[in-house]
Amino acid sequence: MNTVELIRKKRNGEILTEQEIIFLIENFTKGKIPDYQFSAFLMAVYFKNMSKEETAALTRAMLYSGNVINLDSIPGAKVDKHSTGGVGDKTSLILAPIVAAAGLNVPMISGRGLGHTGGTLDKLESIPGFTTQIDLERYKSIISKCGAVLAGQTKDIAPADKLIYALRDVTATVESIPLITGSIMSKKLAEGIDGLVLDVKTGSGAFMSDIKDAQNLAISLMETAMMFDKKVISMVTDMNQPLGNYIGNWLEVYESVKVLQGENVPDLLELSLNLAGAMLSVGGRAADIEEGIEISKEMIKSGKAFDKFLQIVELQNGDLSFIKDLNKYPKSNIVEPVYSHEEGYFSKIDNYQLGMINLELGAGRLTKEDIIDPKAGIVFRIKLGDKVEYGEKIAEFHTDKAEVLDELKSRFNGIIKFSKRKPAEQKLIKDIIV
Amino acid sequence: MNTVELIRKKRNGEILTEQEIIFLIENFTKGKIPDYQFSAFLMAVYFKNMSKEETAALTRAMLYSGNVINLDSIPGAKVDKHSTGGVGDKTSLILAPIVAAAGLNVPMISGRGLGHTGGTLDKLESIPGFTTQIDLERYKSIISKCGAVLAGQTKDIAPADKLIYALRDVTATVESIPLITGSIMSKKLAEGIDGLVLDVKTGSGAFMSDIKDAQNLAISLMETAMMFDKKVISMVTDMNQPLGNYIGNWLEVYESVKVLQGENVPDLLELSLNLAGAMLSVGGRAADIEEGIEISKEMIKSGKAFDKFLQIVELQNGDLSFIKDLNKYPKSNIVEPVYSHEEGYFSKIDNYQLGMINLELGAGRLTKEDIIDPKAGIVFRIKLGDKVEYGEKIAEFHTDKAEVLDELKSRFNGIIKFSKRKPAEQKLIKDIIV
Repeated sequence: MNTVELIRKKRNGEILTEQEIIFLIENFTKGKIPDYQFSAFLMAVYFKNMSKEETAALTRAMLYSGNVINLDSIPGAKVDKHSTGGVGDKTSLILAPIVAAAGLNVPMISGRGLGHTGGTLDKLESIPGFTTQIDLERYKSIISKCGAVLAGQTKDIAPADKLIYALRDVTATVESIPLITGSIMSKKLAEGIDGLVLDVKTGSGAFMSDIKDAQNLAISLMETAMMFDKKVISMVTDMNQPLGNYIGNWLEVYESVKVLQGENVPDLLELSLNLAGAMLSVGGRAADIEEGIEISKEMIKSGKAFDKFLQIVELQNGDLSFIKDLNKYPKSNIVEPVYSHEEGYFSKIDNYQLGMINLELGAGRLTKEDIIDPKAGIVFRIKLGDKVEYGEKIAEFHTDKAEVLDELKSRFNGIIKFSKRKPAEQKLIKDIIV
Repeated sequence: MNTVELIRKKRNGEILTEQEIIFLIENFTKGKIPDYQFSAFLMAVYFKNMSKEETAALTRAMLYSGNVINLDSIPGAKVDKHSTGGVGDKTSLILAPIVAAAGLNVPMISGRGLGHTGGTLDKLESIPGFTTQIDLERYKSIISKCGAVLAGQTKDIAPADKLIYALRDVTATVESIPLITGSIMSKKLAEGIDGLVLDVKTGSGAFMSDIKDAQNLAISLMETAMMFDKKVISMVTDMNQPLGNYIGNWLEVYESVKVLQGENVPDLLELSLNLAGAMLSVGGRAADIEEGIEISKEMIKSGKAFDKFLQIVELQNGDLSFIKDLNKYPKSNIVEPVYSHEEGYFSKIDNYQLGMINLELGAGRLTKEDIIDPKAGIVFRIKLGDKVEYGEKIAEFHTDKAEVLDELKSRFNGIIKFSKRKPAEQKLIKDIIV
């Protein structure tokens, strides 16, 4: 097989065979196909797409570039959730303890912040001592002990994805449904799961701003999951505003703990209950999502979910004293209120830009080498449709970076729009595909 | 400016500014943009094309990546011809002496064989002693002395093209009209010409098999040439069978000399006269192509064209004795007749495969490191529409490679088709765009 001919074949819109896809992925991963050929191939895939079968072959080739964890020795169903990422999207921290408390196993391998979105690993590591670098033996041991583990990707998991992702990021080939599918599913299938719930975000703070694209991605992910005999439910959910009110690493841990303790943060709670319900359903613990939601509510009410969270934190070396007394956590040097410059109904926010402001306050990385400030972030009080007065406090910036404050406040006011009339309500969960 | 954003912009089908194109070409040429980003950009251009203005900006950026030769010190118009390449296409060797004999300057910078097509430099270098590696001073001096020079590209001429071409070749991004245009025109404009004749080949032995693609390329080349204030005529000509009867390096020199000496090789002579006529027209030596053709015929008939050829060969260190006595040239170890396995009218040939067989006989390179056998090639006696008897000798293979002979003869018979009825005649010159 000849790499140029395979690039040409995809460029011409032809279907590659499984053998051809394996050839490309294996040889690229081994360094035998140079980056410049693979990036041309990626761009050809961007334009000419891949069939369901090609996408499954891509996923399989990426999956078997590394180890596939076998959790057969642990009794009970193993389920996970994957979100395509957004602003303030902290549901993983809430779901893992709820679902584990309800008796299923949640082997969750997460990522770091990417662009304007936060990353579960960065959030967890804001808890002093919490470690996400866990080897396979400990991974299994933690699941056996408490039914959940929240770990980082090791170099043994889908190494092809790491290499391909790094190349996509710098060659404008991120936004391709088969490439996104291969990247997500190769990592998720390597976890050793039986079932998966997918939260595909849509809106200004999502990688897929268009709902049709989000639905197509959800379908591609599901088709691929089903080809690997995994039970799967997809939800397409709103990312036109942040989820919950807290954005940033420790700030999101804080809000997650509050929800696990029974506080009602309406949008965050609604989505968490639905995703947990779906996880319990794909794992066979509930007959359907509705029953799963009822079980999940009970796990919160009874305190079992919060206890499970404490158990996970402890097993992963986190300092429990910060969870038990949330106010013990150090505060940012600057906690700056931000006031509305207008009045009216809060009608629109550029949620991507909000994520970027959060990042620049210190909560994310502008370059790979940047060190995250775990305290930094935004408390954002208003939701679309809320009536806001002129001069009302709408947000709080938490940062140690005094030098960026004025610019970021000004940008923040620029991305928020108000209207005279109350805007139509947007559904949080736009589509459920079972 | 940010490379990823520019790749994304082109990928999304937007028009790049001249500054953006200069940024890409300059930084790629300096090694500041890595190959893997540039190849993704090239693939995006393949799919999204470039406007006339973008193509001119690309050409300009590539042109000014190196030196632009100034021939103002030499009196008289400077004209050249460029062919997109084919099998048996040896017109450069005939045109340069005709047009120089008629009083114009022909500063011709040529290339080597590419894929299944031959290269003017490889053909010229089959003449013992002939050198195509000529520095700028000598380049000017030879033109001053005899009105023509047949040189190879130096590293000072459009270095961006060399880098970009090498990358296109291995990333399936060769067949893109703006990229082909930039590559051809940056080199031709660097020669210091006033006018240019373009021979865009179409058919099974051309890079553009479809006539519509060939016409679009011709138009793109002309538009770009005109943006640089060059006079230009394009011809779209047939490459569904070899041009003339001789294919290979010395074999093509041999046939060119025969034509310059007055022999009538119908298709080769017709195309050469038309191209020479067009060159005389763009150079102002003739009022139109027709008048240019008459002058060209006279140059052959009077012996002036052949004398000019001898003068060029001598000035470029070629051994004239081989031109004056064509039979002095060494013969291949094997000169093998090939007989027809069928009878009927010769109706079709896969001319690309014919070029590949020629290459494998030793006349071309399978890898960059291969050394060409100047003697090797094919004498191919029949033309489309000819009546052929069973067992009639239709070709002669010249090679030193006994080991490949049987396979190549069998492949040769497989690519030739015969029909019971005489096929409709195809025009050699399909389109002239003035």
